[in-house]
Amino acid sequence: MNLQEKQNWGIPSDLIRREAIISEKAGSYPEMSIQTLLRKGLMGVLIPKKWGGKGGNILEMTKIALVLAKDCPSLATIYMFHNQVVKRLLDFGTSEQKEKWLPLLANEWVASSSWSELKAGADKSELNTKAKWKEGKLVLDGSKAFCTGAGFSSLYTVLVRTGNNSGEELTFVLLCKDDNGVLFGADWDGLGLRSTSTREIICDNCLIYPDRILGGIGRGREMMEINRASAIHPGIIGLGIAQNALDILREEIKNKPKIWGFQNTRFILADFYARIQGLELLILEAANLADQRNPRASLLTMQSKLWAAQLCKEVTNEVLQLCGAQGYVRGHKIEKLVRDAMAIGIMGPTTELCKEFIASSWLGGNNE
Amino acid sequence: MNLQEKQNWGIPSDLIRREAIISEKAGSYPEMSIQTLLRKGLMGVLIPKKWGGKGGNILEMTKIALVLAKDCPSLATIYMFHNQVVKRLLDFGTSEQKEKWLPLLANEWVASSSWSELKAGADKSELNTKAKWKEGKLVLDGSKAFCTGAGFSSLYTVLVRTGNNSGEELTFVLLCKDDNGVLFGADWDGLGLRSTSTREIICDNCLIYPDRILGGIGRGREMMEINRASAIHPGIIGLGIAQNALDILREEIKNKPKIWGFQNTRFILADFYARIQGLELLILEAANLADQRNPRASLLTMQSKLWAAQLCKEVTNEVLQLCGAQGYVRGHKIEKLVRDAMAIGIMGPTTELCKEFIASSWLGGNNE
Amino acid sequence: MNLQEKQNWGIPSDLIRREAIISEKAGSYPEMSIQTLLRKGLMGVLIPKKWGGKGGNILEMTKIALVLAKDCPSLATIYMFHNQVVKRLLDFGTSEQKEKWLPLLANEWVASSSWSELKAGADKSELNTKAKWKEGKLVLDGSKAFCTGAGFSSLYTVLVRTGNNSGEELTFVLLCKDDNGVLFGADWDGLGLRSTSTREIICDNCLIYPDRILGGIGRGREMMEINRASAIHPGIIGLGIAQNALDILREEIKNKPKIWGFQNTRFILADFYARIQGLELLILEAANLADQRNPRASLLTMQSKLWAAQLCKEVTNEVLQLCGAQGYVRGHKIEKLVRDAMAIGIMGPTTELCKEFIASSWLGGNNE
Amino acid sequence: MNLQEKQNWGIPSDLIRREAIISEKAGSYPEMSIQTLLRKGLMGVLIPKKWGGKGGNILEMTKIALVLAKDCPSLATIYMFHNQVVKRLLDFGTSEQKEKWLPLLANEWVASSSWSELKAGADKSELNTKAKWKEGKLVLDGSKAFCTGAGFSSLYTVLVRTGNNSGEELTFVLLCKDDNGVLFGADWDGLGLRSTSTREIICDNCLIYPDRILGGIGRGREMMEINRASAIHPGIIGLGIAQNALDILREEIKNKPKIWGFQNTRFILADFYARIQGLELLILEAANLADQRNPRASLLTMQSKLWAAQLCKEVTNEVLQLCGAQGYVRGHKIEKLVRDAMAIGIMGPTTELCKEFIASSWLGGNNE
Ligand SMILES: Cc1cc2nc3c(=O)[nH]c(=O)nc-3n(C[C@H](O)[C@H](O)[C@H](O)COP(=O)(O)OP(=O)(O)OC[C@H]3O[C@@H](n4cnc5c(N)ncnc54)[C@H](O)[C@@H]3O)c2cc1C
Ligand SMILES: Cc1cc2nc3c(=O)[nH]c(=O)nc-3n(C[C@H](O)[C@H](O)[C@H](O)COP(=O)(O)OP(=O)(O)OC[C@H]3O[C@@H](n4cnc5c(N)ncnc54)[C@H](O)[C@@H]3O)c2cc1C
Ligand SMILES: Cc1cc2nc3c(=O)[nH]c(=O)nc-3n(C[C@H](O)[C@H](O)[C@H](O)COP(=O)(O)OP(=O)(O)OC[C@H]3O[C@@H](n4cnc5c(N)ncnc54)[C@H](O)[C@@H]3O)c2cc1C
Ligand SMILES: Cc1cc2nc3c(=O)[nH]c(=O)nc-3n(C[C@H](O)[C@H](O)[C@H](O)COP(=O)(O)OP(=O)(O)OC[C@H]3O[C@@H](n4cnc5c(N)ncnc54)[C@H](O)[C@@H]3O)c2cc1C
Repeated sequence: MNLQEKQNWGIPSDLIRREAIISEKAGSYPEMSIQTLLRKGLMGVLIPKKWGGKGGNILEMTKIALVLAKDCPSLATIYMFHNQVVKRLLDFGTSEQKEKWLPLLANEWVASSSWSELKAGADKSELNTKAKWKEGKLVLDGSKAFCTGAGFSSLYTVLVRTGNNSGEELTFVLLCKDDNGVLFGADWDGLGLRSTSTREIICDNCLIYPDRILGGIGRGREMMEINRASAIHPGIIGLGIAQNALDILREEIKNKPKIWGFQNTRFILADFYARIQGLELLILEAANLADQRNPRASLLTMQSKLWAAQLCKEVTNEVLQLCGAQGYVRGHKIEKLVRDAMAIGIMGPTTELCKEFIASSWLGGNNE
Repeated sequence: MNLQEKQNWGIPSDLIRREAIISEKAGSYPEMSIQTLLRKGLMGVLIPKKWGGKGGNILEMTKIALVLAKDCPSLATIYMFHNQVVKRLLDFGTSEQKEKWLPLLANEWVASSSWSELKAGADKSELNTKAKWKEGKLVLDGSKAFCTGAGFSSLYTVLVRTGNNSGEELTFVLLCKDDNGVLFGADWDGLGLRSTSTREIICDNCLIYPDRILGGIGRGREMMEINRASAIHPGIIGLGIAQNALDILREEIKNKPKIWGFQNTRFILADFYARIQGLELLILEAANLADQRNPRASLLTMQSKLWAAQLCKEVTNEVLQLCGAQGYVRGHKIEKLVRDAMAIGIMGPTTELCKEFIASSWLGGNNE
Repeated sequence: MNLQEKQNWGIPSDLIRREAIISEKAGSYPEMSIQTLLRKGLMGVLIPKKWGGKGGNILEMTKIALVLAKDCPSLATIYMFHNQVVKRLLDFGTSEQKEKWLPLLANEWVASSSWSELKAGADKSELNTKAKWKEGKLVLDGSKAFCTGAGFSSLYTVLVRTGNNSGEELTFVLLCKDDNGVLFGADWDGLGLRSTSTREIICDNCLIYPDRILGGIGRGREMMEINRASAIHPGIIGLGIAQNALDILREEIKNKPKIWGFQNTRFILADFYARIQGLELLILEAANLADQRNPRASLLTMQSKLWAAQLCKEVTNEVLQLCGAQGYVRGHKIEKLVRDAMAIGIMGPTTELCKEFIASSWLGGNNE
Repeated sequence: MNLQEKQNWGIPSDLIRREAIISEKAGSYPEMSIQTLLRKGLMGVLIPKKWGGKGGNILEMTKIALVLAKDCPSLATIYMFHNQVVKRLLDFGTSEQKEKWLPLLANEWVASSSWSELKAGADKSELNTKAKWKEGKLVLDGSKAFCTGAGFSSLYTVLVRTGNNSGEELTFVLLCKDDNGVLFGADWDGLGLRSTSTREIICDNCLIYPDRILGGIGRGREMMEINRASAIHPGIIGLGIAQNALDILREEIKNKPKIWGFQNTRFILADFYARIQGLELLILEAANLADQRNPRASLLTMQSKLWAAQLCKEVTNEVLQLCGAQGYVRGHKIEKLVRDAMAIGIMGPTTELCKEFIASSWLGGNNE
């Protein structure tokens, strides 16, 4: 995104960067930045104008996410999950659901996506959170883990197990922060992405009406697959992190010009710069394909997720090394970034799942 | 390039593949394939229609080169250098020179590019081949090394040293195969790219008229730099090789399905497939930028060259490993490909020069 | 080190591990562990018996350091620097100096080594801390950076600049914690190794008598070189970290056996296990050579330092990935280890300096 | 092995190197070198003196193999397999068998080991070569693939399937070159190791007496496992190749000193040199453990095999790159070496099998 585009969107980078430092230290949620994004309508980039959104596409959302990721990876993560939920509502919501929730998500509410559980991470076959019918309502019980934005977001799409025990029927439901029986776990104390409030959601005898079912009973797996084709994924954040690491290196070189005199430094930079450039093209192309509803969008999404995770880890690690002992101290920008970067490969779809997906997609495809 | 495009261009893949096997064994020049490409006008893709060419652009040239590289990397190398010369004539030729040579290069003649010398490879500051004025003519003496197509091509753009001894003035001249004093070295006995006829060119008291000077005396370095911005580079061949290696793996898996059952195989494939996809986007984007005469074309050219060289080496190596002892025997497709791949990083601009270029371009640029 | 040896040395692993958790959280110095090591005489392993030490050799010191590194990398770092100082005293101390300091270092005092400065890290040519003669004493002024154990250690070997301004004459001096004019910087807030108290030492008009000069005026560089031949280096800690990461993986697999079912997990483990085994042999051999005062000790020291730094980074990173989101949370053992590991390559001699040293050693040597 | 040891053993390096060049070109067996090794008793290094051997141990055999591998990897491969057979006879032969064959193998005969088949490479469960009882004799039918030394060796230990069809009972038998019904396939035309005569062995109604059964019916798998504990493996050749590649780089630098001026060259060298050093220690330690019949010998054997295969591939590849276009031409030493290196990972136990073995050994072991 060039400066012009950035200004057009009105992304408040200065504010975000300032709050990023504070909320990293405090491990707190970037409230002010989020409120500003909401006010500027940026959280509604994907939402059609008739519902108060910007009517933008995934390519635009991606470019915004990239800027946010350079300013504050935690914020970008919240933003990314919010847009996953928006997309899910757009793709699977009934007209009533869209009417009800999308206007809120355009300007007022933040949404979170809650799939994972402690024993059901990459593999969702042992999901524990159950939904049982009781007098026309669904009763939810169980606890979800690692939900970004938990406790702060107003709306949650939560994956639960419907049907009988042994079954594998998965369903998405919509929960609100203030619903009875919805509780949130302890504060997030992560290695990085410390301003994401990534916590547990506990459903304790939580009752919901059928209008909170998203996409229909038992369509959970299908909807997770379609999520992949949306090109809204943590790899975007990974790219932003990698690009930011190069910016930090640039500053470092300004202060210590001698390290640029070492061919080793230049060669490391060159290698990374080439790969970052390729990754950027891949990520934008995935977004493009998703906008065109091209079936190859899933493949490119997974490829860029896979690669971004590896690249941002390598780049931040090497830049830290080049910054020497000073880079290893809290407060140096690279110190934070190296920790943030390590989340990307773990966030779903994990590196390993990406590989399985890409491999089977290749075998099935015709490789052109 | 999809099948449709391929058919439109009329690339004779079957013929090329068949000859590739024969000429690899014999270490001979792929004469038939070249003649067919000439006849079909494919060697003239970049040449404007008024001179008998196809009036295509670099993106089209790149797509054709990619197909050729999958069919026969040696042929693609000859094709790539031919197009470098065409581009050089288009960019720097006088109207007389264009008038004279381009129609020939469109349908009848193959051209080669001769920069390197035994002691002046990556670094051209110690060039030995000298051009001295003598009675209004230039007298050339010295020998050039590693010229692809040497002895078969009809036209050569040759880099020579003009000016006094200590100077670094470099100039391009045009030589013809049958010029007096132009001799060719012994047959090429390379590890791979065995059908490229990559040989020495010896200038022994070779006299040429000033109309054979291309771009003007002393503009050699500048023209080499502009060559980089043309996005015509060996990385394209590297990508074709990498893609071809995946095709070979696909065949192998058909024969030995059990190796696909190993997660190791799938994960290796996934990793490569993601990177190949990114590299393809980068290579096409470089071509695009070159067509738009965008100043970033050089950077993306060097980035894709760098990366293609590394990737094709890794991919062919791993695929050979997965093919087991049978892949290690002459006659197996991967055995040849692994040897071809090792040339890409050595062919100019070498991996190391690409890195230096990218690094200084990054430092100078604004990294957006 | 097998269990027997461990018991013989009486390393209090349980205590150390318990304190490691607490002092990591508090960012505090592992006081209790250090006191226990002193009491058990383990800090004096290298000190001859006549001065109250254990009379052990570097191989024994290395094995102890390895155990400590598995239990608490911060503690092992303090231990390692302490032994560097002991060795320096043994090699360069006058008999009075040995008589005076070694008995203290055997059982009561911890020592630190202070070479680095903010602008003189890898490269010591711009050292700022000056020592000037004044009435038979040396006056020290300037500040040293990143001294492990600063504020807690009782004795410091400090590198200072003697001679006139432009000169490069470097000299080691001995400072005590309570010397007048010796101050310590703010608490260490590192990414990892958070219990090392790695801080600044400020010399503010600090006066010392000539008996505090170690090895003679101007022998600083020579003594730094000889330090390399001692095989007492951060790579030992790197190996301990890498081995510990495998232990953590083992526990993880016990809890989540399914991840062992993935060939990817097994292959990653196999690769690391092989390299860790090789690194261990290299580190022990370096120690052996140092004990024999074999001139190749420097080379093997630098080789193992180089390699340990890379390996422990890779291993901890991959193990974290295999532990999933739970490994990314503070409190999980791997979360801490991954941060500790990133210090090894930065601690002197940095990865880059190791490479330069090894390369020139290879070129000079006969490669046998 | 230092020069002294080398002279003591009387390894005829000059002769071997000279023949290596010739036999590589011709793709022929290094007859002269083999005859010299036989005459000097070097093929009998492992054979006790009472049977005419040198009575040496595996460590000595390993050191000799390393020298041979630097001189001629093909020869070292033949030597390695010969010693595998010797070891097998020592471990499993009856006293009659030892009496009969070992004196021959000490000075006159070369032996080969034949396990692999076209469809039973890494995995021996689908072995095709069958042995059936007929009137007190075994009738062998089927064909073995990729037997190093085939057609030149006099004795072969061949793995065959005994028992009924569906069974997995595997047995080793001894075959002689001139046995009736023993035929050899076409000449070896490998990518590298071109002087190994690695060919098929066809058993066509070949009748043998029970005294040709080695180790007893059905002990094949067990004997293959014990082979791993012998520390006689292709990784030794890999190490020799890697070391030789550094020697070639040294020569290159002598001719083109400027490439040493590039930090990139020095850093690549440093990285490799460190790892080669570690690998050497690992390989020697594996040999040591095998000599002591320490149960960890298998693990270290597999670890060094794994690692050697990867390292020799990387080293030769990078050295070729540093040698530029001249290194890519047949006749340059590195051109051959890069091809030889690619065999190591494929030769059994393949890289992938090594990993599985190491992983399960780690899981079973206590990691100390
Ligand atoms: C900062 C952060 C924010 C997050 N936010 C959210 C959120 O908002 N909503 C949400 O639902 N989740 C969130 N997650 C959780 C994330 O989606 C999970 O971490 C992910 O699904 C992996 O699950 P796991 O950590 O339980 O790992 P596990 O599933 O236990 O896996 C452990 C390891 O095994 C590997 N593995 C799994 N299957 C295979 C296989 N077939 N082959 C090889 N290896 C395999 C995994 O890749 C991983 O390395 C977040 C995580 C982080 C770190
Ligand atoms: C198959 C094939 C076809 C070819 N066809 C042609 C052709 O048609 N026309 C033509 O002109 N040439 C051709 N070449 C030659 C090619 O352009 C040269 O190989 C290339 O320029 C490198 O030169 P060199 O091999 O002499 O390596 P050198 O210049 O001797 O370099 C040796 C090594 O040093 C490295 N190096 C150089 N500078 C630096 C630096 N600053 N920092 C770090 N490392 C550095 C190089 O990258 C290389 O690895 C061909 C080569 C091959 C293999
Ligand atoms: C936890 C910790 C504990 C420490 N404890 C001590 C201690 O007790 N005593 C002490 O004296 N110091 C200590 N140090 C400091 C350590 O020794 C320095 O970090 C080290 O010397 C590097 O200095 P620097 O960080 O200033 O990096 P710089 O010297 O500024 O270097 C920056 C980067 O440039 C690279 N570089 C330097 N030269 C070259 C070259 N020729 N070619 C290529 N790259 C090059 C470096 O490797 C580094 O990556 C500690 C550091 C840490 C992290
Ligand atoms: C130069 C040379 C000399 C040789 N000499 C001899 C000899 O003297 N005697 C002899 O008996 N053999 C010899 N061999 C054969 C060698 O032992 C076989 O190549 C080896 O056993 C592998 O068999 P394969 O090539 O059939 O591969 P396959 O078994 O077909 O395997 C194909 C690929 O799958 C991989 N794979 C297999 N199992 C797994 C798994 N569980 N997980 C993941 N990947 C897996 C393999 O590693 C390989 O990469 C030689 C080979 C070469 C190249």
